[in-house]
Amino acid sequence: MIYNKYIFKKNLGRFFFGFSVRFVSGRAFIFENHGNPLDVLRLHTYNVYPTPSKPILVKFLASPINPSDINQIEGVYPEKLQFNTNLMTNTPCAVPGNEGVVEIVESLDQNFKPGKRAIMKNKAFGTWRTFAAADFDDLLFLDLEGITLIQAATLVVNPCTAYCLLKNFISLQQGDYFIQNGANSHVGQMVIQLSRIWGLKSINIIRDRPDVDKLKLYLYDIGATHVVTDVELANKEFMKEMINKWTGNSGVSLGLNCVGGKSVLDLSHYIKENGHLITYGAMSRQPLFMSSGSLIFKNIHLHGFWLTKYIKTYPEKKLEILNDIIKYIRNGSFRELSCDQVYLDKTLSDSKYMETFKNALKNKQKKQVLIFN
Amino acid sequence: MIYNKYIFKKNLGRFFFGFSVRFVSGRAFIFENHGNPLDVLRLHTYNVYPTPSKPILVKFLASPINPSDINQIEGVYPEKLQFNTNLMTNTPCAVPGNEGVVEIVESLDQNFKPGKRAIMKNKAFGTWRTFAAADFDDLLFLDLEGITLIQAATLVVNPCTAYCLLKNFISLQQGDYFIQNGANSHVGQMVIQLSRIWGLKSINIIRDRPDVDKLKLYLYDIGATHVVTDVELANKEFMKEMINKWTGNSGVSLGLNCVGGKSVLDLSHYIKENGHLITYGAMSRQPLFMSSGSLIFKNIHLHGFWLTKYIKTYPEKKLEILNDIIKYIRNGSFRELSCDQVYLDKTLSDSKYMETFKNALKNKQKKQVLIFN
Repeated sequence: MIYNKYIFKKNLGRFFFGFSVRFVSGRAFIFENHGNPLDVLRLHTYNVYPTPSKPILVKFLASPINPSDINQIEGVYPEKLQFNTNLMTNTPCAVPGNEGVVEIVESLDQNFKPGKRAIMKNKAFGTWRTFAAADFDDLLFLDLEGITLIQAATLVVNPCTAYCLLKNFISLQQGDYFIQNGANSHVGQMVIQLSRIWGLKSINIIRDRPDVDKLKLYLYDIGATHVVTDVELANKEFMKEMINKWTGNSGVSLGLNCVGGKSVLDLSHYIKENGHLITYGAMSRQPLFMSSGSLIFKNIHLHGFWLTKYIKTYPEKKLEILNDIIKYIRNGSFRELSCDQVYLDKTLSDSKYMETFKNALKNKQKKQVLIFN
Repeated sequence: MIYNKYIFKKNLGRFFFGFSVRFVSGRAFIFENHGNPLDVLRLHTYNVYPTPSKPILVKFLASPINPSDINQIEGVYPEKLQFNTNLMTNTPCAVPGNEGVVEIVESLDQNFKPGKRAIMKNKAFGTWRTFAAADFDDLLFLDLEGITLIQAATLVVNPCTAYCLLKNFISLQQGDYFIQNGANSHVGQMVIQLSRIWGLKSINIIRDRPDVDKLKLYLYDIGATHVVTDVELANKEFMKEMINKWTGNSGVSLGLNCVGGKSVLDLSHYIKENGHLITYGAMSRQPLFMSSGSLIFKNIHLHGFWLTKYIKTYPEKKLEILNDIIKYIRNGSFRELSCDQVYLDKTLSDSKYMETFKNALKNKQKKQVLIFN
């Protein structure tokens, strides 16, 4: 079934009716009001088909649950999703999810062949659904050969953030040290992998826990230079001695923070004069604490990093970074990270489907990636 | 009595004994161990006279008590004072006080005439005393005509800090707004005066208090554009509206903080995207709280400012700034600020002398300046 979109454009008045169009039934997680995702999200079933303005019918293969998706549903994220009735809901709603990997199932434009895979070109498409009609401008076609489904679904937000955190603030040379908290977060792990690829040395802070040695081993395995718990970090004299020993008294000029709260204060002790401390997350959901003395006497600078703004300011950078990441994945130096693959099977009943999804939302231990099949 | 220092140098072996030298009896506040100034400071009496290596005998006229002096005594300031037995104490001690104005009473070098006034060239001379022997390199001779004793004694630390806070971080143009907390601190008041001189607009935050209107009037009188209490500041919606109105929707790009704690969080709400927030003090003695969101999504940058380091890095700037300040004082645009002049009269008994000084140390309401007479 091949459609010519130009014929379509000439026949807008009678669109659909003059053609045999394949409709598919889709399922989406939607919300109509901001709030706790567990409360406000509901399952919605809809029909979808390619149209002249959105001539590509795509099936979602995998979409991650990112912390910013949750913040967006809560209404505490600066970029709001648009509410509309495109999915034929009674009241305007939005589909959350900002990244994911899709496969073309149907296209009115013969340039886009069924079976071809793509990732989202922009944020806010709404990726927590099974099918959507898309425009060429919604999709980013990359050569995904050698890239796993999970890697393709999570190719932008975390890897690009990790990449920029190490590249954009200070010029680290081979052998230079940096320190990061939340080192076992997905971004943290990607930072570790990139630092190993680039010959940088990392001091990685994790929360103490019963199975801490297992986690330490895992982080060493993906490339961490040193892993210390928050409890070990609090032993200031010992840590300063260790860091002097590790760095050959060169110290640490870059700190990365995704936790906030007191963790920043603890981390800041180990950043040397004129160093920079970058905040890119706030997993503790607390304001960050910072010693005035470190700012005044050590001249430490605090900045934030937000990938969305960076890509908006330097759009040409996105592909450049993605191509590097893909190269690292292909040559085996940037591994797929451990995550929970949440199978949302189309044969599940609505209630079972929703239950499976809600369990994923509740899981704060591991990265959750929705797999639609 | 004219001495030739070169003859002195030739006669080091028999120095003093070959000459008639005037000894004076001095009083100094000294400490031997770091701690609470009220506990560790004691009064010490000593003889002092010019020597070949310190040929200028100076009498202190006025020396302020700066917060950093207190921190130095407590041992929490990064620059430590050297302990020695120069004042013939049994155990090594230090004289605190980093700035002050002196008058030459005697000199072995005829280039330095008795009666001439100078301020300290460097920090850590120890200015909380009545007399000292000084070298040329200890003293900064400026034309102090038209400068009051209080202004001369406090010419460096606070005015130069205020100057740099407004000049060093972002380029403010005439009519541009900034916001500061602790606006009634001495630096805060100097920031207000300089901003008026340079045509800048200020939003000044003070703590709410019973006589708040009186303080507001005072700050308006010295040049504040707007004065708001911390309580008023907490009304976010109202304040945002007011700031939009005041700034013609241009917003505020620079914030100055000398308080720390939650005050920084409250202030940061009113700094616009890509703005800078500078910390130069921590009067609350608490770590500062900062919203991760302001760093990440508003791209606000936090820096510190420390005059000592700045002057070390750019020594040529000090005189440049001081000359500007002196010019502003002479043309009447930079006023002497209200302070408590603490008269340490030489006729007082040791115990009364110490009591007067301790009362000054205890007074946290107003800037204290020791007047030796």
